[in-house]
Amino acid sequence: MKEKISCIYLIPVTLGDCEPGKVLPAYNLEVIRSLGYFVVENLRSARRFLKKCDRSIVIDDLHFEELNEHTPPERVAQLLHPAEEGHDIGVISEAGCPAVADPGADLVAVAQRKGYRVVPLVGPSSILMSLMGSGFNGQNFAFNGYLPVDKEARMAKFHEMERRIRHENQTQIFIETPYRNNRLIAEIAKSVNHSMMLCVASDITGEKESIMTRPVSWWAKAQYDYDKIPAIFLLYK
Amino acid sequence: MKEKISCIYLIPVTLGDCEPGKVLPAYNLEVIRSLGYFVVENLRSARRFLKKCDRSIVIDDLHFEELNEHTPPERVAQLLHPAEEGHDIGVISEAGCPAVADPGADLVAVAQRKGYRVVPLVGPSSILMSLMGSGFNGQNFAFNGYLPVDKEARMAKFHEMERRIRHENQTQIFIETPYRNNRLIAEIAKSVNHSMMLCVASDITGEKESIMTRPVSWWAKAQYDYDKIPAIFLLYK
Repeated sequence: MKEKISCIYLIPVTLGDCEPGKVLPAYNLEVIRSLGYFVVENLRSARRFLKKCDRSIVIDDLHFEELNEHTPPERVAQLLHPAEEGHDIGVISEAGCPAVADPGADLVAVAQRKGYRVVPLVGPSSILMSLMGSGFNGQNFAFNGYLPVDKEARMAKFHEMERRIRHENQTQIFIETPYRNNRLIAEIAKSVNHSMMLCVASDITGEKESIMTRPVSWWAKAQYDYDKIPAIFLLYK
Repeated sequence: MKEKISCIYLIPVTLGDCEPGKVLPAYNLEVIRSLGYFVVENLRSARRFLKKCDRSIVIDDLHFEELNEHTPPERVAQLLHPAEEGHDIGVISEAGCPAVADPGADLVAVAQRKGYRVVPLVGPSSILMSLMGSGFNGQNFAFNGYLPVDKEARMAKFHEMERRIRHENQTQIFIETPYRNNRLIAEIAKSVNHSMMLCVASDITGEKESIMTRPVSWWAKAQYDYDKIPAIFLLYK
């Protein structure tokens, strides 16, 4: 008899307060309902998400383990213990898609080493959606995560991004701590050639969603206030 | 009276023969039902997709324009004509997410210049889903599109990707024409350091979906057949 290979489902959540039906396929709920074991970035918000997806889910019947920046690396493998006993596991992160910009990637790497089946589900990604909406090159792009905080390293990063835009036609995507969004735009207006294009995508899937692509010269003079609003930034020529 | 700003909706489709409910949120259907104007990569498959989403949609009542590799650049702006008259437009590509690896990006760039609202909807992306499932770094990654065909340029690309993996911790993602998938894996086994990790993700969201991350040394000896199966490749350390 062939043994069943355990599945690790990567379950995206809504970005912010959005209704699940706006951004998650019905199939995700089917998968969620079939699972008894979860590894989650934050216990409280994962429970709230599950309840929002389906009020009839009995949270107390489910097993949760937390995986976040406080989890010691040697503990990560242990979190997959239920999979060794043949149980499927759902992975849920704080916002968006697990393992793309959060600790879930370490867990997936262990799951791959152990030979489990890893199954990503569809959900909202501000990286992908902002790229779609930017009008920039989607055949060649890089997501750089957070820019360096150190001023010199940050300038060097701007210049390297500009170089890759010009010479490789590569769209450059990056993020900033929300309370520094305005400052970042001002820095770009100062450091990046004014003929470049900057796209600022904010509150993706939210009620105030806005995706605006304009020349850097436009942003240098524009009135805006993106502070404390989740935003993602894209540069291209 | 404030004029209504026209919306350009970017509407993802299924990858292959998958059921819409498995990979598309219910909200997408609401948007589709509200639209009378579409710009599509391929007329026949767009119609088939709309019928599959909702059999009650009367295709003959809808207006379609085609946008693909044969569309002259000067024609792209004209495709947005209905938006000038206040109509919202839906953009549908051949597979996956519009404007990420197809001609839709040019249309979106024009829509941005004209100041329309651009609204991407959620759907399946083999780039994002393979990254989630790979266990590789999701904080820093690049999608390179198709690798160069020319042998020397291809080798140079492998080495540059290896360099960015080692020195920038940047996951490298790329694709190949499906009938050359096996050859590409063999080339990687020959050209890339055997301690690197290669993830091959095939038939994403399909019945035979498989996402496998193994050392390049493993792939060098493995039995596989990915020819003619849509696949995407990721390299990391």
